Amino acid sequence: MELEKLSINVRNKSLKYLSQYGTVSYINKNSIINNSNIILKKSKNKIISPVIKADGYGMGAKALIKTLIECGYKSFFLGSLSEGLEIRKKYKNVELFILNCGQPLNITYLKKYKLIPVINNLKDLKLWSQYYPKKDPCILHMDTGMNRLGINLQELKDLSDKDYLKNINIKFIMSHFACAEDINNLMNKTQLEELLNCSKVLKKICKKEIKTSICNSSGIWLGKKYLLDIVRPGAAFLGINPILHKKNPLKEVISLYAQITQIKEVKKNDTIGYGRTLTIKNNTKIATLSIGYSNGLSRLLSNTGDVYIKNKQLKILGRISMDLTVIDISIFNSDEVKNGDIVEIFGPNRSLEEFAKMNKTIPYEILCTMGKSNPKILI
Amino acid sequence: MELEKLSINVRNKSLKYLSQYGTVSYINKNSIINNSNIILKKSKNKIISPVIKADGYGMGAKALIKTLIECGYKSFFLGSLSEGLEIRKKYKNVELFILNCGQPLNITYLKKYKLIPVINNLKDLKLWSQYYPKKDPCILHMDTGMNRLGINLQELKDLSDKDYLKNINIKFIMSHFACAEDINNLMNKTQLEELLNCSKVLKKICKKEIKTSICNSSGIWLGKKYLLDIVRPGAAFLGINPILHKKNPLKEVISLYAQITQIKEVKKNDTIGYGRTLTIKNNTKIATLSIGYSNGLSRLLSNTGDVYIKNKQLKILGRISMDLTVIDISIFNSDEVKNGDIVEIFGPNRSLEEFAKMNKTIPYEILCTMGKSNPKILI
Repeated sequence: MELEKLSINVRNKSLKYLSQYGTVSYINKNSIINNSNIILKKSKNKIISPVIKADGYGMGAKALIKTLIECGYKSFFLGSLSEGLEIRKKYKNVELFILNCGQPLNITYLKKYKLIPVINNLKDLKLWSQYYPKKDPCILHMDTGMNRLGINLQELKDLSDKDYLKNINIKFIMSHFACAEDINNLMNKTQLEELLNCSKVLKKICKKEIKTSICNSSGIWLGKKYLLDIVRPGAAFLGINPILHKKNPLKEVISLYAQITQIKEVKKNDTIGYGRTLTIKNNTKIATLSIGYSNGLSRLLSNTGDVYIKNKQLKILGRISMDLTVIDISIFNSDEVKNGDIVEIFGPNRSLEEFAKMNKTIPYEILCTMGKSNPKILI
Repeated sequence: MELEKLSINVRNKSLKYLSQYGTVSYINKNSIINNSNIILKKSKNKIISPVIKADGYGMGAKALIKTLIECGYKSFFLGSLSEGLEIRKKYKNVELFILNCGQPLNITYLKKYKLIPVINNLKDLKLWSQYYPKKDPCILHMDTGMNRLGINLQELKDLSDKDYLKNINIKFIMSHFACAEDINNLMNKTQLEELLNCSKVLKKICKKEIKTSICNSSGIWLGKKYLLDIVRPGAAFLGINPILHKKNPLKEVISLYAQITQIKEVKKNDTIGYGRTLTIKNNTKIATLSIGYSNGLSRLLSNTGDVYIKNKQLKILGRISMDLTVIDISIFNSDEVKNGDIVEIFGPNRSLEEFAKMNKTIPYEILCTMGKSNPKILI
C-alpha cells in the first residue's frame, strides 16, 4: 500500500496499528460497493441476501453488514446463533437467517432475538411447527446432493404425517451447490432440478407457491435459470473469484501488511531461525518482520513463501515464527529500506487468490485464519 | 469430554456454547497449576517470567494471566504493545515486558502504560538512553545465532560510543534458542556461551553485573547451567511438550469439541461435500459436525483427518467446509448417536501434539489458529 495515497486519518491509524499490533489489514469499501453492483447486475432483480457467516469470513461481520446495509441489503445469512445475537444487538430491523441453529433447536433464543432459522432436518421442523404454527417464518434447507445438511426429496415424499407442514410459515426453501465454481459441472443442473422437485412436492402438500434459493456467490455466475427467487452471495462481496480457472470479474477487497522490525547482515554459513532449517550461502542482508503464523502467515510458507517491499518480491528465510518472519532483502541498497518500512503480504502485488494458492488452500481459509488476529481498517 | 464429570455450571455453559457457537474449548486450570509446579521445580528457584504472547498462544492472555498470577508469578512477557495495554488495563502492579515494541520505538506509549521494552537494536537503545537515562528499566535482546531479532556480540564490541550504555537501567539481557527442544543440539551450548560473552562485555562497559536469560520452555529442560538468572517459559504452562521425540512430562491443558448437527444415510456412489472429492463406496451413515476450517479444523484434514465420538475414531469424509465437517459414523447403531452429541477434535483421546502432527504443523500454530474462533471455558 502506498501510504501516501491514504487519507491522513487512515495513514495515522495504519502507523499506530503497525507499531502496536505489528500488522494492519485494509478492507476497501469502494471495492465492496463495486462488487455489490456487479452482483446486483448478475442477479437480475432477484432478492439478494448476503452471507456474512464465520464473522464475515473473518473480516468482521459488524463492519461488513454496515457497508452492505448502505448498499441497500435488508436480509442476511449468519452461521450461528452467537453471530445472530451479535448483529441483532446493533441492528433491530434487518432480517437475520441462521444457518446452524444448534442442537437441540434453541427456540427460546430464536424467538428472543427474532432470528429466522434455517431448518436442516424433519425433527427440527416438527418441533418448530409445534411452537410456531403459521406465525414466524423459517427457511427449509434441502439437501440436493451436497450430503452435508438438509432434508432430501425422498424424505419429503416418504413423510407419513404431512399435515403439520401446512401450518408452517416457510419463507423459502434453499439448497447449497457442491460445485458451483465449475461452470461445466453437470452436478449444478442436477441439484437445481432436485430443488425444484422439492418445491413441487411442498407446493402440493402446503397448497401454495414455495419460493426457492440455490445460488451462493459462484451460483450467480452459472446463468439466469439458476437465480430462482433469492440469491445468497457472500465471498463475492469480498472479491473472491467466483469462477474456477477464469479471470476474477470482481475487485480485490482485502490486503494485509506488516512492518520491518529489524534489519541485519548475516554471514555465509550462518543459519536462520528455529531448527536452523536454512544455512546462508552468501553474506545476506535480512529483515525481520512483525508477522508470523499467529497473524495468518502460515508456517507452510517457511523457506518457500515470499512477501513484497516497495513492489519487490522477497523470499522468506527459515521457519516462520509465531509473530516474526525473516526475509532476504539483499537486493536493496542500505538507504532503500529501514526499520518500520511497510511489507505487503497480499495486496496490489499479489491477489488473495494467489496468496491462497501459495498456502495450498482457498481464499476463504486465509481470511478466516488471518481475520481475527489483525486489526482492520475500512478504507 | 464426559460432560457428566463436569460441574453443573460448566456443563450448562458447554451446552450453551455448543448450541450457539458450534464449538467449545476447555482450558484445564489444574493442569496449568500442575505444569507450573513442574516448571518451578525444573527452574530451581530462578526468577520465572511467563510468556503469554499472541494472546496467550490464542488461548486468551487475560484468562491465562489470572491463573498464572494465582500461581505466584509477577512478571510477564507479551508480544506487542497492544497486548501490553490489554493486560495493563486490568493489572496495574505486574511487570510487563514487551518483545516487539514497534518501529519507531513508541516511547510515549511505553511510558504511559508502564511497559518495559525488550530492545532489539542499538538504534532503539540509543533512543531509549536519551529518554530514560538510568530511570526506567529495559531488557536487551542479544542475537546469539537465531538471526531474527537482537544485538550481536560483535556489534557490542564494535561500539565506538559506549558511554551512553552506562546510563541505561538494563534489567537483564536475554537471548532466544534456535534448537532448545533438541537436547543434543550443539547450538544450545554455543548460544549460551555467546550470551555469557555479551554479558561480560556489557559488564566491562557498564561496570556492574548484568543478569541474563536464555531459556524458553524447552530451554528449562536442557539442564541447570542454562537456567541463568531468569527463565521464560510459555508453551510449557499449556502442556506443549518441551522435548523433541520424548514423552511429554507435562499435562495436557487444552481440548476442543464440536457437536453433531445432523445425521443421515448416504448411498453407494453418492458424493460428499464441495468439489465432490469423495465418492461413497457402500451405504454409509454420516454425521455433519458444527466445526470447520474457520474454527481450527484445517482444510488440510479433508478426506484424511478424523475425530472422536464416545472414544471411537471416525473418519472425515470429503472437504472440510468453513463451519461444517462430515464424518463416517457407520460403526454406531442408530440408538448410539444422536443430534447434539459431543465430538472430540483433540482431548482425552488424542493429544494436541498428535493433532498438530496430523495437521503437519506444531501445537503452537494449532492453538493460535483455533484460539480466537472458539469460546473457551476455564475448568
